[in-house]
Amino acid sequence: MADTTYDVVGIGNAIVDIIGRCNDTFLAEHGATKGHMRLVDEETVESLYKAMGPAIEISGGSAANTMAGIASLGGKAAFIGKIADDELGTIFGHDIRSAGVAFETIPANSKSTARSLILVTPDGERTMNTFLGVAPELDQREIDADLIAASQVVYLEGYLFDRAEAKAAFRQAVKIAKGASRKVALTLSDAFCVDRHRAEFLDLIRGGVDILFANESEVTSLYRVGAFDDAVRHARNACELAVLTRSAKGSLILSGEKAITVAPEPVARVVDTTGAGDLYAAGFLYGLTAGKPLETCGRLGSLAAAEIISHIGARSETQLAKLAASRGL
Amino acid sequence: MADTTYDVVGIGNAIVDIIGRCNDTFLAEHGATKGHMRLVDEETVESLYKAMGPAIEISGGSAANTMAGIASLGGKAAFIGKIADDELGTIFGHDIRSAGVAFETIPANSKSTARSLILVTPDGERTMNTFLGVAPELDQREIDADLIAASQVVYLEGYLFDRAEAKAAFRQAVKIAKGASRKVALTLSDAFCVDRHRAEFLDLIRGGVDILFANESEVTSLYRVGAFDDAVRHARNACELAVLTRSAKGSLILSGEKAITVAPEPVARVVDTTGAGDLYAAGFLYGLTAGKPLETCGRLGSLAAAEIISHIGARSETQLAKLAASRGL
Repeated sequence: MADTTYDVVGIGNAIVDIIGRCNDTFLAEHGATKGHMRLVDEETVESLYKAMGPAIEISGGSAANTMAGIASLGGKAAFIGKIADDELGTIFGHDIRSAGVAFETIPANSKSTARSLILVTPDGERTMNTFLGVAPELDQREIDADLIAASQVVYLEGYLFDRAEAKAAFRQAVKIAKGASRKVALTLSDAFCVDRHRAEFLDLIRGGVDILFANESEVTSLYRVGAFDDAVRHARNACELAVLTRSAKGSLILSGEKAITVAPEPVARVVDTTGAGDLYAAGFLYGLTAGKPLETCGRLGSLAAAEIISHIGARSETQLAKLAASRGL
Repeated sequence: MADTTYDVVGIGNAIVDIIGRCNDTFLAEHGATKGHMRLVDEETVESLYKAMGPAIEISGGSAANTMAGIASLGGKAAFIGKIADDELGTIFGHDIRSAGVAFETIPANSKSTARSLILVTPDGERTMNTFLGVAPELDQREIDADLIAASQVVYLEGYLFDRAEAKAAFRQAVKIAKGASRKVALTLSDAFCVDRHRAEFLDLIRGGVDILFANESEVTSLYRVGAFDDAVRHARNACELAVLTRSAKGSLILSGEKAITVAPEPVARVVDTTGAGDLYAAGFLYGLTAGKPLETCGRLGSLAAAEIISHIGARSETQLAKLAASRGL
């Protein structure tokens, strides 16, 4: 796979995060399930914004965070996602490009750029309330075939897999990648998301996903099992690689009959868990496309995830390449 | 002064800060003087934004930061400042209101909300590049006479003292405050700002400022002297109170013939000095309007300033009232 311009191209929702603090009571009063992402309409996002405390704005979006993380590690990344021609869109575009990620999707001149009201509780857990605006309107025409063929891996964000057009765009991306002998990676994103589209996710995985990323609740939801170990049995032969993250328990990498357990990186204080999974995927994919052993890929994932949860926001505050070098990774 | 609804009403530029990191070379290459604020036009702000790295957005504005700090300490604050009816204006309005500050200035439906590109160097020093947009268009009609008469102190931000309309608005505010037997406070904001308007600042001070806030470079610029001690001699009888901040050297409060030296609050690591002066003023004015002794006012100022420089952005991350209580203030 040496003849590629990019290590990874990510396809996902282009979102600006609006991050504030709250307590558990506030979440309950506003019908938000702690630790999850829910989609909200424009009216709800406005009333919730009015009710929440002071906030800060930081570019986000799951796959976009992953691509920014890969660039911070020294990898070559590109992103495909839909913004509107508005101020939040300008912020999103600036932040991802200045992080070193190629981003050429044309902004829409209708609707608005997606925003996610992220409420962080004192335990560092994040609960997301996302108004998608124009983000889901990404369609097949925006899946740049040359870009995908020029990338070692195409990384698909499960959150985007919702509208028929986006699903078609994903299938198109898989087809192009397969045709160019590239790898396809998918992240399941969220257990509720898996629950809404289980059959189609399973189809997509069977139809060409080489690398599956999921956390415990997502993978148990995918296979409708109660225990993680049961999910592991199903996931083992579903794809070439299944990478299962387990928060404070670290992660498990399944490759054929091999199962590699990776310890989590210690964190002095968990400030905000937003982006933990995204940055784990960044470290893992950076390692994989750089030809590192699977265990090193997992350790890079743990390291990048640990950096992101030690501060507010899902974009790294330190240069991850330096951090990795300091650990000999 | 018990018959007041607000402790302090601030008048200043309504700004959203766009904060990123850079090194000293980047500042030099882009003609920015480290540690200062410069006004830039729309073209410059756009090209600088393009050149700078990933950023985060946090509401700012000097007097607005001070009012948010007073509210966080448990005081009653209001703010008068001009935003546009755009996304950054929505962010500014949300953040200041949800911080507990009354803010009723009508957004303009022309131009754009002010933004300041704040470049933070590895030593924690901030350099500001401000595009004011609609902010300076605050005029006399927006100086709410009832609000000023209902506040113990009106706090004027030197940065805003630039256009003729804003200067007239300041003089109007002083007149209303004096008529209602309220106190007038002024912050000089920046040495370059003092240099541009020295004579008028001196007139304003003579004409009714009771409490003057300045740092070392501002007060030496105001009196065109080289040494801080010489500036102290001039400032001593200029107003009822002169509050002079000296960064790591703490602060000096001049009241008649008394001079009270206040030690700085220790800070483990200076992350970003943005808002240090603003939050010092918040602590001081909160203490003063709550009837505390001057030394306690200064210690509250040091404490609030120490909190703000320990993290990115000029809005406090912890509830300052709790922090003050934990120190017995």
